[in-house]
Amino acid sequence: MFPFKNNIILDRNINRNLYLQLCDQIIGFIKSGKLPPSTKLPGSRKLAENLSIHRKTVIASYEELISQGWIETIPARGTFVSSILPIVNPLGFDRSFAEMKTKDKSGFTFSKRTHLVRKLSISNTEQTLKIDDGSPDHRLAPIDEIAKIYRNISKKMYNKDLLTYGSIYGNIELRKALMYYLNQTRGLDIKIDNILITRGSQMGIYLAGQLLLSNKNRVIVGSTNYITADNTFIESGGIIERVPVDEEGLDTKCIEKLCKSKEIKAVYVTSHHHHPTTVTLSAKRRMHLLQLAQHYNFAIVEDDYDYDFHYSNAPILPLASNDNKGNVIYIGGFTKIIAPAMRIGYLIASKDFIDEAASLRRIIDRQGDQLLEQTIAQMITSGDVQRHSNKVLKIYKTRRDLFCSLLKEKLNPYFDFRIPNGGMAVWTKLNKSYHWDDIYREAKKLHLELNPNWRRYDNNNSNHNGVRMGFAALNEDEIREVINRLEKVMNCINS
Amino acid sequence: MFPFKNNIILDRNINRNLYLQLCDQIIGFIKSGKLPPSTKLPGSRKLAENLSIHRKTVIASYEELISQGWIETIPARGTFVSSILPIVNPLGFDRSFAEMKTKDKSGFTFSKRTHLVRKLSISNTEQTLKIDDGSPDHRLAPIDEIAKIYRNISKKMYNKDLLTYGSIYGNIELRKALMYYLNQTRGLDIKIDNILITRGSQMGIYLAGQLLLSNKNRVIVGSTNYITADNTFIESGGIIERVPVDEEGLDTKCIEKLCKSKEIKAVYVTSHHHHPTTVTLSAKRRMHLLQLAQHYNFAIVEDDYDYDFHYSNAPILPLASNDNKGNVIYIGGFTKIIAPAMRIGYLIASKDFIDEAASLRRIIDRQGDQLLEQTIAQMITSGDVQRHSNKVLKIYKTRRDLFCSLLKEKLNPYFDFRIPNGGMAVWTKLNKSYHWDDIYREAKKLHLELNPNWRRYDNNNSNHNGVRMGFAALNEDEIREVINRLEKVMNCINS
Repeated sequence: MFPFKNNIILDRNINRNLYLQLCDQIIGFIKSGKLPPSTKLPGSRKLAENLSIHRKTVIASYEELISQGWIETIPARGTFVSSILPIVNPLGFDRSFAEMKTKDKSGFTFSKRTHLVRKLSISNTEQTLKIDDGSPDHRLAPIDEIAKIYRNISKKMYNKDLLTYGSIYGNIELRKALMYYLNQTRGLDIKIDNILITRGSQMGIYLAGQLLLSNKNRVIVGSTNYITADNTFIESGGIIERVPVDEEGLDTKCIEKLCKSKEIKAVYVTSHHHHPTTVTLSAKRRMHLLQLAQHYNFAIVEDDYDYDFHYSNAPILPLASNDNKGNVIYIGGFTKIIAPAMRIGYLIASKDFIDEAASLRRIIDRQGDQLLEQTIAQMITSGDVQRHSNKVLKIYKTRRDLFCSLLKEKLNPYFDFRIPNGGMAVWTKLNKSYHWDDIYREAKKLHLELNPNWRRYDNNNSNHNGVRMGFAALNEDEIREVINRLEKVMNCINS
Repeated sequence: MFPFKNNIILDRNINRNLYLQLCDQIIGFIKSGKLPPSTKLPGSRKLAENLSIHRKTVIASYEELISQGWIETIPARGTFVSSILPIVNPLGFDRSFAEMKTKDKSGFTFSKRTHLVRKLSISNTEQTLKIDDGSPDHRLAPIDEIAKIYRNISKKMYNKDLLTYGSIYGNIELRKALMYYLNQTRGLDIKIDNILITRGSQMGIYLAGQLLLSNKNRVIVGSTNYITADNTFIESGGIIERVPVDEEGLDTKCIEKLCKSKEIKAVYVTSHHHHPTTVTLSAKRRMHLLQLAQHYNFAIVEDDYDYDFHYSNAPILPLASNDNKGNVIYIGGFTKIIAPAMRIGYLIASKDFIDEAASLRRIIDRQGDQLLEQTIAQMITSGDVQRHSNKVLKIYKTRRDLFCSLLKEKLNPYFDFRIPNGGMAVWTKLNKSYHWDDIYREAKKLHLELNPNWRRYDNNNSNHNGVRMGFAALNEDEIREVINRLEKVMNCINS
């Protein structure tokens, strides 16, 4: 007989009843082939004795196993492993059930997404300073405010409805607040039906890509362009066409030329500050782009990721503010103003498109976090979001000025850049007698981490030799230290 | 000259500077063609007089418009609308800028998802009682607990890191807590690398579908099956094959037959309680299914959506607990235990598949809400989740018993059902001399809302005449009232 005594280990300290632990292990022996079909099991009294447990525990186990179909009782003969179980790949007697581990490799094939970015390098040491590609400073996030409002909302009984399945379009209070907020700050003229709440801008880009580009439709982007948007469009099955980007932004004449020769489904534009080069799309080109969209019936996917961060003049109204024919899909979010982890954004478009995007969103993750959405709604209505935005804008402007002046003062021979009018990063071109790889490597030795490789990957072989250097997430001391280390890096490379 | 005085409306009460309001409106006139290229603008002094504002305000506006490229100054001649702007579709002089609205219809085409479920019917009246298809009672959600922990976490300075971009795999504390929790409660044997945090089970199904089924791969589901899963697989480009479901769950012999004739990529199974019929996959079929998966190298997508709600016996361990070849993708979540709006779930699979799913998730919505994830991690570790789960399990069991006994007592001639061993719904078959449409209509008159039409849509024309009647979201008084009204409905139909 199978040595139950040696093979069954029951632990009174874990959070599962003894009789269930016994079940689990017997099932394991059956599944692994150690107890083949029709094996006779010991009587309950005997097994209880062997394992030093109460007989009732064994009986409860056996009843459970019978009800689940693993074992069967044959009158006057005893209890047996069910005779009709097929055997799954016996592992051999020498391996115990506990040793079976989920493998690193799947037992089936699936399509690999080679176009998708894989991993971000993560450094955890204390002294490491990081230059990202333009993230906000999460240390400035109004988290106390948020958590307080969140808790107040959750305390109100009438808000309990926020906990069940809600609208796939997003929390109605947030849509209302956004309608007023966007009409006022962005010069839009939208109604609630034109708004879908998303999880940050990224979900807006994803939804737009899926709805517009499947079936190998063409989308025009700049050369170069925000890599995650490129990846998202490729993932959705689209074909990417590139047009040059100069000091006025996307070259709309090239777009016109492409429209004449191919069917274009969409143009992706970060009109306010082109990603990565930070230039603003000029007024003339804005008009031209809208005109082309109307003439060739394509969608403008306007990703206004840093509308709120413009330093030199007032923010320029988005293309969406003059979209009188329903050509613009306007995408934005609160992740940059509030915190990257608070993934609340919006997709603004004609109602027919919003309806379709909401249906698709329903099968992606059903809905957003209504409590958080209601919290943000309250912060917009009370003016908290605007006040916070004004506050951090001033801080970031100071940081930009310091970063740029030090970059110019200390590193002039090596880097070429223009002071950006807005955003959180400087587009920094490296003198072509140097290589970013060398800088990256030397910097690492000094605990300075630059954007991971993929962020400066030149996706169009335009040989731009540029990277985005984010300044917003660094405070003034950190900026000084970063420039110091960069100076040392360049001295090292030169010597 | 253009009548600025009559057309410009400045509002000191709104949250935008006067000079920007003036900019916005002038841009509007330029865009709409009211101020064509090369139009001369009034001098700043004159315009200020006309509008009763300070001259400096006008100057600030003009400077802004010049910097944005909308207007230009020609020395010794004055200020003009920029001569090089193309005109976008002039709307005629009689329409003001404010009248331009985003249309209901887009100015471009996009693929419509006819396979996706569109809208849920929503009723808002106080006296309406609703029979859903098996939702939890959100009134039982431990929201005070959650909000308290959430706030405590957010207060700690060292948790501020949770606010910035985090791992695409999900919060590490939650993955750790889940590893122990799932290994203990589900008999799994996984490591952290086998876990991706998702937004509820639905995102797990979506990710699996996208990775497995694009390129018209085949997935086997039951007839009938959870409709949202069907929709998700169709959306991802898969082809659905159906096998019968009987009292032992999915018919695995039919699956074997299909495998012999076609390449099968995946089998979707809600093994614990089949959706919609609530039957449990028998032990024999579990073994057979695993065997087939190993032999034919397909993936088992095991959606264990209501593992925690099993009343009669102990929960049956999932297929994933015996997945020694990496064939099972195990999907679960906390939305049913905690609250539907708290969208936290998990996808468990071999590391290679998890890596791929995480890359895909990165472009869908970047990451989850780390603060909430950390909150749930803390609740798992402290045992709060288990305690809450045990508490509601008892409540739901009482509700099931009451619902089923009343259904039997009062509505026996009309409905056929079996008491479900678990879950939150009863699979109720209507006597075939009646029609659900009639019941639906009559019920509405009595303020009783049944599942919306699509939930009982017979997606395989099997003529089952069944619907899922959810009991969990109704308290005992509500259950009595629901059955009362249903009784009246049937009397009405019979008279």
